[in-house]
Amino acid sequence: MNIHDQTRRKTPRILCIGMPVRDLIFRVPDVPARGSKEHASEFIEIAGGNSPNAAISISRLGGRVLLTGPIGGALAASNATIDDQFRSEGIDTSCLVVVDGVVTPISTIMIDPSGERTIVTFRDPKLWTVKLPSSEMLLAECDAILTEDRCAEFATELCAEAHRRGIPVIVDGDRMMSLREGLLQVASHIIFSADALHATAGESDDIAALRKVAKLTSAFLGVTSGSKGVDWLDRQGEPQRMPAFPVHTVDTLGAGDAFHGAFTLAIAEGQPLEQAMRFASATAALKCTRFGGAFGSPQRIEVDEFLASSPAEITT
Amino acid sequence: MNIHDQTRRKTPRILCIGMPVRDLIFRVPDVPARGSKEHASEFIEIAGGNSPNAAISISRLGGRVLLTGPIGGALAASNATIDDQFRSEGIDTSCLVVVDGVVTPISTIMIDPSGERTIVTFRDPKLWTVKLPSSEMLLAECDAILTEDRCAEFATELCAEAHRRGIPVIVDGDRMMSLREGLLQVASHIIFSADALHATAGESDDIAALRKVAKLTSAFLGVTSGSKGVDWLDRQGEPQRMPAFPVHTVDTLGAGDAFHGAFTLAIAEGQPLEQAMRFASATAALKCTRFGGAFGSPQRIEVDEFLASSPAEITT
Repeated sequence: MNIHDQTRRKTPRILCIGMPVRDLIFRVPDVPARGSKEHASEFIEIAGGNSPNAAISISRLGGRVLLTGPIGGALAASNATIDDQFRSEGIDTSCLVVVDGVVTPISTIMIDPSGERTIVTFRDPKLWTVKLPSSEMLLAECDAILTEDRCAEFATELCAEAHRRGIPVIVDGDRMMSLREGLLQVASHIIFSADALHATAGESDDIAALRKVAKLTSAFLGVTSGSKGVDWLDRQGEPQRMPAFPVHTVDTLGAGDAFHGAFTLAIAEGQPLEQAMRFASATAALKCTRFGGAFGSPQRIEVDEFLASSPAEITT
Repeated sequence: MNIHDQTRRKTPRILCIGMPVRDLIFRVPDVPARGSKEHASEFIEIAGGNSPNAAISISRLGGRVLLTGPIGGALAASNATIDDQFRSEGIDTSCLVVVDGVVTPISTIMIDPSGERTIVTFRDPKLWTVKLPSSEMLLAECDAILTEDRCAEFATELCAEAHRRGIPVIVDGDRMMSLREGLLQVASHIIFSADALHATAGESDDIAALRKVAKLTSAFLGVTSGSKGVDWLDRQGEPQRMPAFPVHTVDTLGAGDAFHGAFTLAIAEGQPLEQAMRFASATAALKCTRFGGAFGSPQRIEVDEFLASSPAEITT
C-alpha cells in the first residue's frame, strides 16, 4: 500500500464555510428582454451557494463535509427544505447558524439551451453579522477548509487559526477582493474566477494578474476560465495551463463550485498539484453535462473512470 | 337614497377564477444580460397571478371575493404561504383546488428603477386538468365573474352557466385567444392587453382589432395599453379612449390586474361604463405608485379621493 492509498483510506474531513442560497432554477428558451415575459419549460427549487455547492461535490467524491455559515430565520419552511437537501447528500449541517428576521439568500437562475446561466440574486446585508460556532468545534478533525471570499468578514479569524495549525485553507475568489484582505495571508490556495481576478488585480491579463496578487501572498494562485480551462503559477512562479475537458455542456451552474470542491478534497488527500487540477477539471466537466446545479455533480467513480479514459493535457 | 347607493350597500360578491402564482419579486438595478449576474437590493415572495391579483384589488375596494382555481400539491409549505396571504386580504380561498404532484406556478419578477417588470414564469401543464367545485357552490350569491382566458379549459362551462343566469362575466384577455374560443360567447366584457388583442385579431391597430373581434361576440370590448390608457368600443361600436392618470410609476406589476378587478367590481355595483373605466384607471394608476405587485393595490377610500381630485378626461 503506497502513501496515496493511505491518504485515500483516511476519508478527509472538509470544513466548508459559505452562505447557503435558495436556487430557483428555470430552464428558459432565452433570457427575457427588459419588459418582456419568458415561459420556462422546467423549474426546480434547490439548495445552492458557492461553498455549499462545493460541499455537495466533495460529499459525492467521498469526502466528509461539515458545513457552516448563516441561514435566514425568516421563511422557515424554505430553510427546512435547504437543510433536508444538504443532509440527504450526507453533509453535516449541524453548524449552520440561523440569523433571525432575515431571509435566506435567494437566486433566480435562468438556464438557456446552450447551458449558459444568467442570475439574479438577493442577499440581506444582515447575514454578515453571523457568529460562527467555536473554532475548537469547527476545526476538530479538519483536514482542509474551503471558503468564499464573501465570507471573509466572519471567517478570516477561523481561517487564521486553521493556518496556524497547518490546515490547508482554500479560497474561492469569486468576487473582487481587496489586496489588503486578511484571507490572502491565511490562505494556502486561492482559485479565482477570471472576472474576480481581473477586478482584484486591476489587470485584465490572467498571468499578469496572478503575478500581481502573488506579490502579496504566499498562497498557490490559480484562475478558472470556464471552458477555456485553468491557469496557475507553479512553485517557481511560472505560468501553467490546463485546458478544460471538452464536454457537451447542458448546465454550467455549480461547475466552478465543483472545481473548488474537488480541488480542496484532492489537496486534503495529498494529491500533487497537477493531479489535483486534473481531478477538479474532470469533476467540473462532468457537472456541466447535467442539469440541476450542484445536484448534477458526479460521483467519485465517474470522475475516476473519466480520468482513466482521458489523456493528460498540460500546456506550459 | 338613490339606486347607486343601494347597489353600493349590497356589497357585491365576485367570483375570481384564476391560477394563483408564487411571485418572487426582485428589485434590480437592471435586467441581467445573458450570462451575467445581477444583485437585487430588495426581495419579497408573495401570492400573485392575474385573477388572484385582481381578487386582492377587489377586496381592498370593498368587494367580497370567492377565489377558485388550481394550486399545486407539491411544495406544500409554499402553498400555505399563498393561502395565508390571500386570506389576510379577506379573500375566501375555500374553493381553491389542490392538484397533486404538481408545483404551484412560479414567477420571478425583476422590477427595475423605472418600474418596468421583466418576468420568467413556469406553469406545469397538469394544472389545467383541475376540476372546479360545482357551479351551484361557485355561483351562489355571485354578482359577477372575473376570469383569465388561460382558464378557458376548465372555466368555460361555469361561465356559460353564469351567462345563462344573467351574471356578468368579465374576461382578462392577457394571451392570444382563438377567435373560436367559447369564452367569447359567454363573456359580457372582455378587456384585452394590447399585445394579446393584436395577436388574437391578427391586427396591430387597436381599434381595427377590437372591431374584428366584435364581429364574433356581443361582449363589451376594451384594450388597456399601460400608461397610454384604455380604448373601447361603445354601444354604437364607436371607439372611445381614456388616457391613463399620470402618476410617478414605481412598480407596474399587477396594474392590469388592478384595472380588471376594479372594473369588475364597478360593473357588479351597477356603475355606468365610463364611470367604471375611470374607477378602474384610477385603481391601476394608484397601484403603479407602490412596490409589491398586487399588495400595492389601493383601498376604496384612496381611489374615491383620487377620483374626486382628478378632472374627467375622455377623448373620442
